[in-house]
Amino acid sequence: MRPFRLAVLVSGEGSNLQAILDSVHGREGIDVACVGASRPDARALERAREAGVPTGVFAASDHSDRAVRDEALAEFLIAHDVDLVVLAGFMELLDPAFVRRFDGRMINVHPSLLPAFPGVRAIEQALDYGVRVTGVTVHFVDEGVDTGAIVAQAAIELPYAPDIARVEEMVHAVEHRLLPEAIRLIARGGVRIEPAEPGARRRVNLEREPNGER
Amino acid sequence: MRPFRLAVLVSGEGSNLQAILDSVHGREGIDVACVGASRPDARALERAREAGVPTGVFAASDHSDRAVRDEALAEFLIAHDVDLVVLAGFMELLDPAFVRRFDGRMINVHPSLLPAFPGVRAIEQALDYGVRVTGVTVHFVDEGVDTGAIVAQAAIELPYAPDIARVEEMVHAVEHRLLPEAIRLIARGGVRIEPAEPGARRRVNLEREPNGER
Repeated sequence: MRPFRLAVLVSGEGSNLQAILDSVHGREGIDVACVGASRPDARALERAREAGVPTGVFAASDHSDRAVRDEALAEFLIAHDVDLVVLAGFMELLDPAFVRRFDGRMINVHPSLLPAFPGVRAIEQALDYGVRVTGVTVHFVDEGVDTGAIVAQAAIELPYAPDIARVEEMVHAVEHRLLPEAIRLIARGGVRIEPAEPGARRRVNLEREPNGER
Repeated sequence: MRPFRLAVLVSGEGSNLQAILDSVHGREGIDVACVGASRPDARALERAREAGVPTGVFAASDHSDRAVRDEALAEFLIAHDVDLVVLAGFMELLDPAFVRRFDGRMINVHPSLLPAFPGVRAIEQALDYGVRVTGVTVHFVDEGVDTGAIVAQAAIELPYAPDIARVEEMVHAVEHRLLPEAIRLIARGGVRIEPAEPGARRRVNLEREPNGER
């Protein structure tokens, strides 16, 4: 049986990529088919090579504009025949045409309980606001900023007098668990975005168990 | 020793008032000193009378405008020498002058993880958005809509295919635990709003234990 093929897009350290390589890659019929980076010096590229996964670098500076860069990235993903694109610390905006092309087949992990604190520096935003609970969201990518349909969320109760470095650690630990869970759920066909009707309740349907009833 | 005196403001059923009467009133040096209602037919008024707590009705229709109604309400609260005003399902806007008068001495319980889903119908807003985690917030009341400094939050993981009636039950059960917790914390002096400086991180300081270190 053909495996479910992932692309993982990264910009930096790649700790979420590492979690995927360690807990998803080569298991339950799921393979990381390729890793794309927005920077040639991303540490994540080394992690991919160590795992024997093909890599590509798609730096904005190597292309005339973002749309051209994203076109090259799309060709790379299609050449690797991927079923799902995972943004795992990919720090650059993607062209709307790219986003539409992978509609319903691209997810992102965001370090807050969306819709609270979208955009950059989400952990800092949450601490500045003074929340007592934050968390992590895995969502489909649409053309908005962190506005796509939610696949999975997990909450984190903050310690008293939270220190940002400690909260970042807690958030990353939850990301490393939640993103692989969401990928496994999608890979086994357990997620379906309901048709978006104007004004209708937006729902991502999830099965409770593999092959189980909802 | 003089008890810490609460006023509870209500509009309807009063299930949060009941939780306060059952788990806070007359314990740990805390008394519910009075209950104010925005409607004469609020079931909460019966609950207060059954507990022997003085009540007052402050219906907007009995006064020439909101400011006059809120002035009468403020006099009622001051006559009962209250230390903390608790909005527990109080469904009406309060005049800014009233809010300023009780600045740092008035809290509200809101059925979402603020800043997500402020305002009315928060549970429905959250389900419409498609969140997988929601919760409850207790916050100080300021002049905005559910924007005041957060005292306590608790998260709720939603069941698959959540049914709004079931989610409302879950949220109310958490409110009945969290609001008394927040009141006890404030009553024992465990909460302090840090001076708001422009651009500074907003923080509510909380002690970890009664008389304990943070």
